[in-house]
Amino acid sequence: MTESWVNSAERIGADLHLELSGPGGRRAALIRALREAVRGGRLAPGTRLPPYRSLAADLGVARNTVADAYAELVAEGWLTARQGSGTRVAERAEPLRHAARVPVKAPPRARGPRHDLRQGRPDASAFPRAAWAASYRRALQAAPNEAFGPGDPAGRRELREALTEYLARARGVRTEPDRIVICSGFAHALRLLFGQDGGGVLHGPLGVEAYGLGFHRGLLAAAGVRTVPLPLDEHGARVERLGRERAVLLTPAHQFPTGGPLHAERRSAVIDWARARGGVILEDDYDGEFRYDRKPVGAVQGLDPERVIHIGSVSKSLSPALRLGWMVLPERYVDAVLAAKGEREAWASVPDQLALADFVVSGSYDRHVRRMRQRYRRRRDRLVEALAAHAPHVEVTGIAAGLHAVLRLPPGTERSAVKAAAWQGVALDGLADFRHPQATDTAADTAAYDGLVVGYATPSEHAYGAALEALCAALPPG
Amino acid sequence: MTESWVNSAERIGADLHLELSGPGGRRAALIRALREAVRGGRLAPGTRLPPYRSLAADLGVARNTVADAYAELVAEGWLTARQGSGTRVAERAEPLRHAARVPVKAPPRARGPRHDLRQGRPDASAFPRAAWAASYRRALQAAPNEAFGPGDPAGRRELREALTEYLARARGVRTEPDRIVICSGFAHALRLLFGQDGGGVLHGPLGVEAYGLGFHRGLLAAAGVRTVPLPLDEHGARVERLGRERAVLLTPAHQFPTGGPLHAERRSAVIDWARARGGVILEDDYDGEFRYDRKPVGAVQGLDPERVIHIGSVSKSLSPALRLGWMVLPERYVDAVLAAKGEREAWASVPDQLALADFVVSGSYDRHVRRMRQRYRRRRDRLVEALAAHAPHVEVTGIAAGLHAVLRLPPGTERSAVKAAAWQGVALDGLADFRHPQATDTAADTAAYDGLVVGYATPSEHAYGAALEALCAALPPG
Repeated sequence: MTESWVNSAERIGADLHLELSGPGGRRAALIRALREAVRGGRLAPGTRLPPYRSLAADLGVARNTVADAYAELVAEGWLTARQGSGTRVAERAEPLRHAARVPVKAPPRARGPRHDLRQGRPDASAFPRAAWAASYRRALQAAPNEAFGPGDPAGRRELREALTEYLARARGVRTEPDRIVICSGFAHALRLLFGQDGGGVLHGPLGVEAYGLGFHRGLLAAAGVRTVPLPLDEHGARVERLGRERAVLLTPAHQFPTGGPLHAERRSAVIDWARARGGVILEDDYDGEFRYDRKPVGAVQGLDPERVIHIGSVSKSLSPALRLGWMVLPERYVDAVLAAKGEREAWASVPDQLALADFVVSGSYDRHVRRMRQRYRRRRDRLVEALAAHAPHVEVTGIAAGLHAVLRLPPGTERSAVKAAAWQGVALDGLADFRHPQATDTAADTAAYDGLVVGYATPSEHAYGAALEALCAALPPG
Repeated sequence: MTESWVNSAERIGADLHLELSGPGGRRAALIRALREAVRGGRLAPGTRLPPYRSLAADLGVARNTVADAYAELVAEGWLTARQGSGTRVAERAEPLRHAARVPVKAPPRARGPRHDLRQGRPDASAFPRAAWAASYRRALQAAPNEAFGPGDPAGRRELREALTEYLARARGVRTEPDRIVICSGFAHALRLLFGQDGGGVLHGPLGVEAYGLGFHRGLLAAAGVRTVPLPLDEHGARVERLGRERAVLLTPAHQFPTGGPLHAERRSAVIDWARARGGVILEDDYDGEFRYDRKPVGAVQGLDPERVIHIGSVSKSLSPALRLGWMVLPERYVDAVLAAKGEREAWASVPDQLALADFVVSGSYDRHVRRMRQRYRRRRDRLVEALAAHAPHVEVTGIAAGLHAVLRLPPGTERSAVKAAAWQGVALDGLADFRHPQATDTAADTAAYDGLVVGYATPSEHAYGAALEALCAALPPG
């Protein structure tokens, strides 16, 4: 009987290569070795383990070492010990199933297309690594200890103060640090504002521009918010159509994606609507800093800070990878938004917030925006020149602004142009992809045309020329 | 008539101090000056502005400069221009109301108590600024360009790989990078898992420990999840009471707050329950790295990776300010959790994720945890010694682990002890604050006693001695 135990111990020691190596003492090594043997299935559930002294003798360790190791593994649930039945491998130590799982959400577009002209992205190769790292280091050094404790759902005051000044100067936003709430970006802002199933700070129906991001529409639909499309004409969204909507979401500086600014009269009219109806305007200022032919038109928020929720982020100006944005709120919404944001939830990292505050205050943000403005402006110019040379029948619509342009195509050619682009290795979207499903364009509405939305900011500098060439090759003949 | 315009221009130029200074040209300066005058209410709504040439002459600028400035401000909506009626201040330029607003959500506990012994917080003064900044800088330098583009909702692969290795080594977690989803912390994880109003990946009723964080209970209640309390005895949560619950939330390594580990038999039993009933176990491994008398018991997740969702974060080990956590998921939940997380929403910052990956892989994380383990262990020892010396009738319950301990008080003294502590300037919570409202303790349940929850990790090193003294002075007499 003793022999059989010894045999068993020998088997475990030999066949199973119970190697007592690695960091820590022999006890730790034995625990590790036994655990791995159970994990890997080499010690099957129900297997009886040798008594302490047998395994101890076999491995040349003290009996207590084995006893301790068994006790530990019993405590962890790998082994079971029952009076009179010895120590066994627990029945429930299930091996990890290594399913041949296709990662369903593969890193989105990790292997991107050859020529990436999709909208909405800044040139990722232009992220100002050195300047950002310097701001981060300075911010980390200067931060008070309490910055590493539990934080404020509104975000760091340093950042809200920096944004108050910056947004006033660059975007004509009028606010105070107490009315700013830091968030992770526009989508997070929408979610905080509308909650789920009508439980939000704001409620539908929500007027939206007839053309916009389907991603936003989907997020709103998931939150149970009904969206009502406003047609677009050459003056922007036809806000005079607003009636019983309780809020309206606009891109006043540069309509997304069609590219016009909201006309001054419309800006006034939508404020009037909000005042008369108690409505609220959501101003998506997604690329307000990027105007190339003149100083950007100021934010609508400046006209009436109590009627407009101004939402911005660094996603276009710096990088979407930072997940940093802000909401500038009318006073009456601040508490409700903070309550929706909740304690200790999905906040932006405090060191990143402090780094952005430093980046803004030190002037690095202005310098970076200026540099990118020049770069994107050149790219837009090159796009216009390339079209003039190779496809003069294709017009670039909209103002000289932002990170994208819409190419107006001959009627009926949009779908085939998108396909032809794909053939050329160019990824981009057709204008129809941005159309609200309930939109009812008329001939008077400017957006009722075939078009391509070209994100000219997306490629890196050296890849842009080839992308333009491929794009031109894909355009329909004149 | 011309005179009157000139007068008006003079008045604007003089009384209103239209100073054309600051960055940019004269046009920009004039725009700024006029905008400020309207904003500040110095130019009242409806006021008619002087014609271009008058103001131009008055200010000594070109006529076109004034025309441009007016046009800009009309575009922004500050001014209105109508044929034959000249340029006027718009009616809708509402001044910002500077309400004497009391910030309702003041930075929580910015002005903290004299002695902070609240649970749940690491020593904020011990954040490893230099090592973290070094990891951040290295990560930023080494990151591929695509890291600054749109990201993967699952989180950076570098971090998921580092965590796979680390959690296996330190916590006995068995997983793969594809089953890890990065989140902002435990609360974010709960929100992703339970959604709102039954729309989540998991559903109630949810078994919870009879004592736990009210904050978590509140979050679950807001999500429409019914929680069913499990009584606690000296072996931990009485999981044999689980029946028709669909999930159970446990703190197996160190019950929060009562401080015991889940007994090996209970670990097995809860896995059995999950298998028999198709239930799922949520393992809140909030302080698993901090065990002082021995190696920590491994995670329950290791027993059956398909039945346990293991949730951890750096909130206790590094800082809650980083907002970085992780979910280790059974394979069948991965896609649903990623869908709940959504595109471009409240994700953790990518540079921070890369920094944490570097911090873990470079060994800085282990070093920091080791250092803090020693520090907190000393603090716990000092607490035990102080009680032995000054209040021998007050027992420290639970294992030597974590960032807090529960002091067992004479029956009926908890409320007065919390008050007495407040008088001494000590902030801490009574055990009753953590009790589930539907909990039905019996005499057999260990948690049915008066107690104080002491977060000994919270103060900075130099403040701990005084906090202990003040605590001892507040304890009820023996």
